[in-house]
Amino acid sequence: MAKQILVVGSVAIDDIETPAGHRSDSLGGSATYFSTGASFFAPIRLVAVVGSDFDAAELDDLRSRGVDLEGLEQVPGKTFRWAGRYGADFGDAETLDTQLNVFEDFDPKIPESYRETPLVFLANIHPELQGRVLDAFEGHRPELIGADTMNFWITGQRDALLKVLSRIDLLVINETEAHMLSGKKNIYDAADAIRAMGPKILVIKRGAYGALLFHPDGLFVAPSVPLRKLADPTGAGDTFASGLMGYLATCDTLNFEAFKRGVLAGTVLASFACEGFSFDRVKTLTRVDFDERMMQLRALISVD
Amino acid sequence: MAKQILVVGSVAIDDIETPAGHRSDSLGGSATYFSTGASFFAPIRLVAVVGSDFDAAELDDLRSRGVDLEGLEQVPGKTFRWAGRYGADFGDAETLDTQLNVFEDFDPKIPESYRETPLVFLANIHPELQGRVLDAFEGHRPELIGADTMNFWITGQRDALLKVLSRIDLLVINETEAHMLSGKKNIYDAADAIRAMGPKILVIKRGAYGALLFHPDGLFVAPSVPLRKLADPTGAGDTFASGLMGYLATCDTLNFEAFKRGVLAGTVLASFACEGFSFDRVKTLTRVDFDERMMQLRALISVD
Repeated sequence: MAKQILVVGSVAIDDIETPAGHRSDSLGGSATYFSTGASFFAPIRLVAVVGSDFDAAELDDLRSRGVDLEGLEQVPGKTFRWAGRYGADFGDAETLDTQLNVFEDFDPKIPESYRETPLVFLANIHPELQGRVLDAFEGHRPELIGADTMNFWITGQRDALLKVLSRIDLLVINETEAHMLSGKKNIYDAADAIRAMGPKILVIKRGAYGALLFHPDGLFVAPSVPLRKLADPTGAGDTFASGLMGYLATCDTLNFEAFKRGVLAGTVLASFACEGFSFDRVKTLTRVDFDERMMQLRALISVD
Repeated sequence: MAKQILVVGSVAIDDIETPAGHRSDSLGGSATYFSTGASFFAPIRLVAVVGSDFDAAELDDLRSRGVDLEGLEQVPGKTFRWAGRYGADFGDAETLDTQLNVFEDFDPKIPESYRETPLVFLANIHPELQGRVLDAFEGHRPELIGADTMNFWITGQRDALLKVLSRIDLLVINETEAHMLSGKKNIYDAADAIRAMGPKILVIKRGAYGALLFHPDGLFVAPSVPLRKLADPTGAGDTFASGLMGYLATCDTLNFEAFKRGVLAGTVLASFACEGFSFDRVKTLTRVDFDERMMQLRALISVD
């Protein structure tokens, strides 16, 4: 039986434009993407906020996937909105519009029933909110605390972010963010500097170049899944983290080998995420789909 | 006993500037770098040209490494010169000066004693010269023909290059060159297009992101050696190819697994090349150095 995972992050309404198409008023947000992906492996508890404009039926799919929504607050006001556009290379999105709305005054409350959750993931959200969730776990620290962040918080909320980093076990960020956070040009120097800030385990995502896993027991270099046609990279980072945390929730022992396989699981889930708009492809994922691509990915680095 | 490798390419005098230092009148050239690296594994036969200004003592080191220089012509005129500068990221060099000199009228002659060489490598040089070397092997085709090229020939000598590509087994180029040669943005589409031009085996070098090996039996994704301090990337591409071809020269069967290990051997040799100026580090390489780094590299992609 997989362990429970608590995730705090955003639930959002997105407008997304990619070279493959356009979608308006689409369910998004870091916690939503994470929950959808991680529910493939483990029972999820979600902490987030939506506005009075939010149609609860939007979450029927999450509910049907066994995601516990007791920690999702609905408050007066408008739901968080994000609009972004991807260029021809499907690289980092250009943010066209961000409306924090109900997230401006959000004070995350952890339901009593969530207090013993063994795995916690702080998805991309204001680091002060990430910190307040950790406060709720004082006295009964989870087995593993992971976090994500983004350029916006690295430059704008550095002090709050450094406090969070000092309290977590695992950080999952991309290469640009790693250079920005550490101020180091060399990626191995960057990793040293970031791990000295707190997280002993660091995953640096490099898009089509795969990912690096820095662990006290060594370094692991994960390849990416060879993709020829992308549809929408939105949420790929959250989905990567969901595969990693979700896989770890199925492991008795969280050692280096478990993290290696977790990074590969995250890579597999993220590759499916990119192949459809929004959650389209991840939602229809079967165990056979996952296992086949996992085997394909492992074959890429197998050598006698 | 390793098989013989014939290499045709340039012998040059370089002026190199990197963030780590500067060196003038330094021995360089694609054939020189290749011979130095590959002689670590196998006996080498070199085909190239130098001018009357060239001091033959410069090649004492190659000779002492068992490189056969019967195919090196000395002709009236000046030796090929190249000057380049690397920026803070140690990426592609900015070429400051190129003087083809004796290479303008070079007509490579293959000594009779070289005619049965089992492995041939066409290092970076005008594709017409690469083609003329292959002409000399008509009627007794080598077991394996590999080649390198560069942006300059891809854009300026496309027809001659395409003719060479149709006659070889293995092409080793970098990512930018692969996109340029194929006109494809997606790297897997680029690989398909290039392999349709002739070489059934394709290695795409991605610098610090490692290398991709496309082979009829599958795809292999090689990591790079984690380097924190580079000195001079000049010749790293030639040295990579030398490790790959050199390793293959030690194999009875040139199957997918042999090519995988060859790509790792090339990665290891190239990493040493970058750590010193010119040939400094590769020249002092020991078997223990090589084996240790090969183990380190393989550990990066080992997963239970």
